[in-house]
Amino acid sequence: MEVQPLHDRVLVRRYSEDEKSKGGIIIPDSAKEKPAEGEIVAVGGGRISEDGKLRPLDVRRGDRVLFGKYSGTEIKIDGEELLMMREDDVLGIIKK
Amino acid sequence: MEVQPLHDRVLVRRYSEDEKSKGGIIIPDSAKEKPAEGEIVAVGGGRISEDGKLRPLDVRRGDRVLFGKYSGTEIKIDGEELLMMREDDVLGIIKK
Amino acid sequence: MEVQPLHDRVLVRRYSEDEKSKGGIIIPDSAKEKPAEGEIVAVGGGRISEDGKLRPLDVRRGDRVLFGKYSGTEIKIDGEELLMMREDDVLGIIKK
Amino acid sequence: MEVQPLHDRVLVRRYSEDEKSKGGIIIPDSAKEKPAEGEIVAVGGGRISEDGKLRPLDVRRGDRVLFGKYSGTEIKIDGEELLMMREDDVLGIIKK
Amino acid sequence: MEVQPLHDRVLVRRYSEDEKSKGGIIIPDSAKEKPAEGEIVAVGGGRISEDGKLRPLDVRRGDRVLFGKYSGTEIKIDGEELLMMREDDVLGIIKK
Amino acid sequence: MEVQPLHDRVLVRRYSEDEKSKGGIIIPDSAKEKPAEGEIVAVGGGRISEDGKLRPLDVRRGDRVLFGKYSGTEIKIDGEELLMMREDDVLGIIKK
Amino acid sequence: MEVQPLHDRVLVRRYSEDEKSKGGIIIPDSAKEKPAEGEIVAVGGGRISEDGKLRPLDVRRGDRVLFGKYSGTEIKIDGEELLMMREDDVLGIIKK
Repeated sequence: MEVQPLHDRVLVRRYSEDEKSKGGIIIPDSAKEKPAEGEIVAVGGGRISEDGKLRPLDVRRGDRVLFGKYSGTEIKIDGEELLMMREDDVLGIIKK
Repeated sequence: MEVQPLHDRVLVRRYSEDEKSKGGIIIPDSAKEKPAEGEIVAVGGGRISEDGKLRPLDVRRGDRVLFGKYSGTEIKIDGEELLMMREDDVLGIIKK
Repeated sequence: MEVQPLHDRVLVRRYSEDEKSKGGIIIPDSAKEKPAEGEIVAVGGGRISEDGKLRPLDVRRGDRVLFGKYSGTEIKIDGEELLMMREDDVLGIIKK
Repeated sequence: MEVQPLHDRVLVRRYSEDEKSKGGIIIPDSAKEKPAEGEIVAVGGGRISEDGKLRPLDVRRGDRVLFGKYSGTEIKIDGEELLMMREDDVLGIIKK
Repeated sequence: MEVQPLHDRVLVRRYSEDEKSKGGIIIPDSAKEKPAEGEIVAVGGGRISEDGKLRPLDVRRGDRVLFGKYSGTEIKIDGEELLMMREDDVLGIIKK
Repeated sequence: MEVQPLHDRVLVRRYSEDEKSKGGIIIPDSAKEKPAEGEIVAVGGGRISEDGKLRPLDVRRGDRVLFGKYSGTEIKIDGEELLMMREDDVLGIIKK
Repeated sequence: MEVQPLHDRVLVRRYSEDEKSKGGIIIPDSAKEKPAEGEIVAVGGGRISEDGKLRPLDVRRGDRVLFGKYSGTEIKIDGEELLMMREDDVLGIIKK
C-alpha cells in the first residue's frame, strides 16, 4: 500500500536513533527549534505556480533530509509511522 | 441528486471504520492533527490561476484520499453524510 | 426592480423550508459551519485577474446552490429577502 | 467645486429616506451588516493591476448603487455630505 | 532645500484654516476618520509594479488633495511643516 | 573594511546634531513617528521582482536621506555606528 | 558529510570571538536586534519565482556575512555547530 502526496507535499520516514549518521549530524538539545532527520519515501507531483503551471519538487525519493522537528502530520501506513509535510518544511538534503 | 463542487473544491465520503484499509493506514491517537480517510465523489472544475485561467484538479472521482481531520464542511445528500473541502486540504492519494 | 451585482458578487434567494429538496440535502444540526441552500437570481460581470482582465463567473442565474450559512449581506428587493455574496462563498451547484 | 477620486475610489451621495426606491429595496433592521443606497457622483481613473496597467472602473457617474453601511470616509463639498469609498465596497448597481 | 520623495511617496503641505476652500469642502467633526486638505509639493518617481517596472504617480506638484487625517509622517523643511505619505493615502484631487 | 548590503538593503550613516542641515529640516519633537537624517554609504544589488529579475535601487552612495527613526539594524564598522535598512524605509532624498 | 540547503536557504558557520574582524565590525550591546557574523558554508539551489523559475542566490560559499542574531535553526554536523537560514536573513556581505 502506498500514498501519493499531493502537489508540493512529501512523505518522510523519520530515522530512529540507531539509523542516525554516526559522527554526523547531532541536533543540540538546547536549540529552540531543532530539525529532525529522515528519508523521503514519496513526493508530490509538484508545486503549482501562480500562472497555474506545475514545477517538479527538488527532493527525490530516497533523499536523506533535515526538517523542522514539529513539521508535518503523522500517519501510519502498513504499521510504519510516516510524516506528511510540504517540501518547504525540508531544510536541506544530507549528502554522503 | 448530485452536487457539483465549485472551482477547487471536492466532495468527499468519509470511510466508516469497516471500510478502512485492513493492515493499512492507521492514524495514531496521540497525533495533534490526525488525517482521515475517504473517497472523492465529485470534483470542481479547477483552480483559478492569478492570470484568470482554470487549472484542472489533480484528484479524481473515485480516488481514495487522506485529508485533515477537521477539514471541510459537512453536508447530507440523499441521507448520506459528505464533506465539502478545498483540494489543498487533501494530503495525498492512497494507491492499492 | 433589479440589482446587478458588481464583479465577482452574486445575488442569492435562500430557499424556504418547503422549497428544499425532498429526500435531498439535509444540513446536520450539529455541524459547526452549516451550508444553506438557495437560487442564484443575478451574477456580477466577473472576477478581476491580477493582470486586470475579467473572468466570467461559473455560476449562472437559476443555479441552485449551496453556500456557507453566514455568507453574504442581507438586502430586501420588492419585499423579497435576498443575499449578496462573493462567488467564492458558493460551495457547489445542486444538479437535478 | 469638484473632487476627482484617486485610482479605484468613487464618490457617493447617500440617498435620503425620501429618495429611496418606493416599494423597492428595504434593508432589514436586524441584519448585521446592512447595505445603504446612493448615487455615484464621481469615479477614479481606474484600478492599478499588478503589472502596472490601469483598468477602468465598472461603476459610472449617475449609477444608483448599494454599498456597505459603514463603508467610506465622509466629506462635505459645497454643503453636501458625500462618501469617498473604494469601488470594491460597492455591492451592486440598482437597475430601473 | 528640497526633499525628493522615494517611489510612491508624496510630500504634502497641509492647508491652514484660512487657506481652506470657502463655501467648499468641510469635514464634519463627528466623522470617525476625517480627511484633511493640502497641496502636493513633491512627488516620488513612481510605484514599482510586481514585474519591477516603474509606474508614474497620478498626483502632480501643485495638486490640491484630500487625505486621511492621520496619514503620513511629519517633517519640517526650512521652517515649514510638511507631511510625507504614500500616494494611496491621497483620497482625491480637488478641482476648481 | 566594507559591508555590501544584500538585495534591497542600504547602509546609512546617521548624521550627528552638528552635521544636520542648518536652517533646514527639523523633525518636530511631538511627532509620533519622527524621521531621521543620514547619508547612504552602501547600497544592495537591487530588489528582486516577482518574476525573479533584479531592479536596481533608486538611492545611491552619497545620497542624503530621510528615514523612519526606528528603521534598520545598528552595526559598528571600524568604530563607526551605521544602520542597515531596506530601501523602502527611506522616505526621501534631500536635495541641496 | 555535507548538507545541501534547499531552495533559498544557506548554511552559515558563526564566527567565534577570536575569528571576528579585528578593528572591524563590532555589534553594540545596547542594540535591540544585533546582527552576528559568520561564513557561508553551503547555499541552496535558488529562490523560486512566482512564475516557477529558479533564481540563483547572491551569496556564495566562503562569503563572510552579517545576519540577524536570532536568525536560523541550529544544527551540528560532524561536531561543528552551524546555522540554517534563508538568504533574506543575511543582511550583507563583509568585504576585505
